[in-house]
Amino acid sequence: MVINLNNLFNSKSKNAKIGHFQDLDHLDGVSISTTSANLYNSKRDDVVLFYFRDGANYASVYTQSNIVSENIKWNLNIKSKKIRAILINTRNANAFTGKKGFQALKNLAEELSIQLSEKSNLDDQEPKKTKTSDIMFACTGTIGEKFPTNKIKNCFPDLMDKIKYTQNKYIWMKAAMGIITTDLKPKIAMEECKIGNTSVRIYGIAKGSGMIFPNMATTLGFIFTDANLSSSILKKVLQKNIETTFNAISCDGDTSTNDMVTIFSTGKAKNKEIKNITDPKFKEFNNSFHKVLLNLAKRVAADGEGSSKFVTISTINCKNEKDAKLISFSVANSPLVKTALAGEDPNWGRIVMAIGKAKVKIDLKKLSIKFGNFKIIEKGELVNDYKEDDVAAYMKNEKIDIIIDLGMGAKEFTAYTMDFTKKYVEINSDYRS
Amino acid sequence: MVINLNNLFNSKSKNAKIGHFQDLDHLDGVSISTTSANLYNSKRDDVVLFYFRDGANYASVYTQSNIVSENIKWNLNIKSKKIRAILINTRNANAFTGKKGFQALKNLAEELSIQLSEKSNLDDQEPKKTKTSDIMFACTGTIGEKFPTNKIKNCFPDLMDKIKYTQNKYIWMKAAMGIITTDLKPKIAMEECKIGNTSVRIYGIAKGSGMIFPNMATTLGFIFTDANLSSSILKKVLQKNIETTFNAISCDGDTSTNDMVTIFSTGKAKNKEIKNITDPKFKEFNNSFHKVLLNLAKRVAADGEGSSKFVTISTINCKNEKDAKLISFSVANSPLVKTALAGEDPNWGRIVMAIGKAKVKIDLKKLSIKFGNFKIIEKGELVNDYKEDDVAAYMKNEKIDIIIDLGMGAKEFTAYTMDFTKKYVEINSDYRS
Repeated sequence: MVINLNNLFNSKSKNAKIGHFQDLDHLDGVSISTTSANLYNSKRDDVVLFYFRDGANYASVYTQSNIVSENIKWNLNIKSKKIRAILINTRNANAFTGKKGFQALKNLAEELSIQLSEKSNLDDQEPKKTKTSDIMFACTGTIGEKFPTNKIKNCFPDLMDKIKYTQNKYIWMKAAMGIITTDLKPKIAMEECKIGNTSVRIYGIAKGSGMIFPNMATTLGFIFTDANLSSSILKKVLQKNIETTFNAISCDGDTSTNDMVTIFSTGKAKNKEIKNITDPKFKEFNNSFHKVLLNLAKRVAADGEGSSKFVTISTINCKNEKDAKLISFSVANSPLVKTALAGEDPNWGRIVMAIGKAKVKIDLKKLSIKFGNFKIIEKGELVNDYKEDDVAAYMKNEKIDIIIDLGMGAKEFTAYTMDFTKKYVEINSDYRS
Repeated sequence: MVINLNNLFNSKSKNAKIGHFQDLDHLDGVSISTTSANLYNSKRDDVVLFYFRDGANYASVYTQSNIVSENIKWNLNIKSKKIRAILINTRNANAFTGKKGFQALKNLAEELSIQLSEKSNLDDQEPKKTKTSDIMFACTGTIGEKFPTNKIKNCFPDLMDKIKYTQNKYIWMKAAMGIITTDLKPKIAMEECKIGNTSVRIYGIAKGSGMIFPNMATTLGFIFTDANLSSSILKKVLQKNIETTFNAISCDGDTSTNDMVTIFSTGKAKNKEIKNITDPKFKEFNNSFHKVLLNLAKRVAADGEGSSKFVTISTINCKNEKDAKLISFSVANSPLVKTALAGEDPNWGRIVMAIGKAKVKIDLKKLSIKFGNFKIIEKGELVNDYKEDDVAAYMKNEKIDIIIDLGMGAKEFTAYTMDFTKKYVEINSDYRS
């Protein structure tokens, strides 16, 4: 895979749209290194290391699957207050690999902790020791294959050599490229904001493609901030914002064996301590963090394998958010709706069907449906001046918004999805794609 | 659509396999008529009438959707103890058609009751009057389009002329052909058995195709028997057997706006009254009825739009049937599993993923997985002598069996499904296919 990184940057706007990339810059306390451990037949970076010289506070959310990968088991076992490194590999999920898979990570953690400690001895005025329990792992790739421990271990010297203590947009893009699998595009996002009078940065990268819900297609998200925030605050702000962002593309976190989203804070911005996420001084960070998560989540949805359209399904004016979520996902996950979207067919009958099967009590007389700004159903009836040609023209857009109004309350939920094309089947039915 | 009906009969075996058709014969008390009301652009039978000269006891199960079609509302309103007729039309679902759609059925029922009563005046020694409330409706087709009342009403005289009081395999096949929409094949099934010393017949036809679960693709099933059974007994035996047959392809009945399965008994076999479905004399009927339902249900699953394989997912040795069902459907409905099946890829990792996300507590150390007779996972580990080439060869079969053994109890559930091909997307993304 040979990429001209310059081609990937086509927007300097901070309010980057899908398809445009923001420029991530230096984030104090984070070091990045990427290399190839030859996990793929083609030469590409497949191992990415984030190294926190002075440690980082952290919080994670993991897959809700009852079968989790060995790296998730490893991470759930970590007791360290601060993390020094996270190693991300592609090609192999280290799932259903049993004790050997777990032992492989122990083996890698031992070697990596030695090499990182040696690196610190060479580079740092006050050398820092990295312990095995300071290291997290993220894995994504095929389930059930033997984990390539030696290949990965053998790339560590190169990974150490390439550690960059200062980052720029190219390094971040290399990291974002290094963690993708079948993704068509890397995913990066950023926001800057203030906590009190202190400016802080929130940077993120993610991977995820394929049929996001209700299935596999491991989703990984890594967020980095120089804000000074405790692990407890990070946990709360992550849990608060994950439902309407990453879980709005992967309902209930019920996805792959390997899903994880983790936030790391280096504290280098030295803002005053935040003791509660309801602190008014924390509001701006909360909003900016939500933007970064949503931006990344949308990019994951938009990059669905073989998808040609990015689709939002908003269910509004519901009695409660649970109902709104059930309906949005029922529509978003209907293969018949998704294939109609691929065919640019304003087949609203299939939307009605998907609403009906969502196990939510609705009052048909109050139901309204819009495609973009086009009213289709109003108060339970097809609008009198419905012009299918106009709506069919709207369906040709790359971004489609479907708005379902139950007229029964004030709660809402938006799900993000894509259409369902022949290419999707092609990608996923190719032998061990 | 021009069909050489003779080509459709390729088996006289009573234990007909999928792809073979049994020969249905006369069933006393049932009359059949089919015609074209020109509901399609191409000439084909699109209206089918079953007429019960002397009435029939009956029981139905309907879709669990919160949005149901007007004909289902009509049927749910019927108070008559016996049914005289059911009229089935294709092309238009009469769903989301509001009061006008309901009024259309009233209109049709009025006209049909008059014409059937006149027919009885001409043909019967003791003429029987058909009331509007003795008529049921089944509709399948596009949602939200104006119901073609006049076209259907105009075909009634022809429908009356064509009523056959004696049936043979051709008439049954015409009826089975008349109710299909995007189905590739008609679906018929039969069993003969005894209640006490009396021989009775159980005949059935069905339609259904497309993505059966978790979506639309209306499934209709009509079962006819000459057994003498009360509506109460019919209701119990239908509810008992639907879960492991039609609901094993459409989980929880959570499907289209129009789904219905109805059983009619004419009583002409004059067996002694059955007062309880646990009566030993009723056991044979119960088993045969289950066979007819399962046979039809399998034919619906096997005929999934664009499918190339018929797949059974059996989850065995579970603590309870609910767990078994959750896992079987989680696997059966996973697009990633279904595309792997289309690609003839023994990608067991995707099976593991689908088991993991099923929200059932499992003990990984006890989990075993087989593809046909090939053991893949035993007690949570890939078998030592796993030969992927052998399993890949097995995957080339048209019928694939996946067996998931939880090793935690004695309950089981089998789901029936098909693979997921490019053709499926093609069919469903064609503008208003």
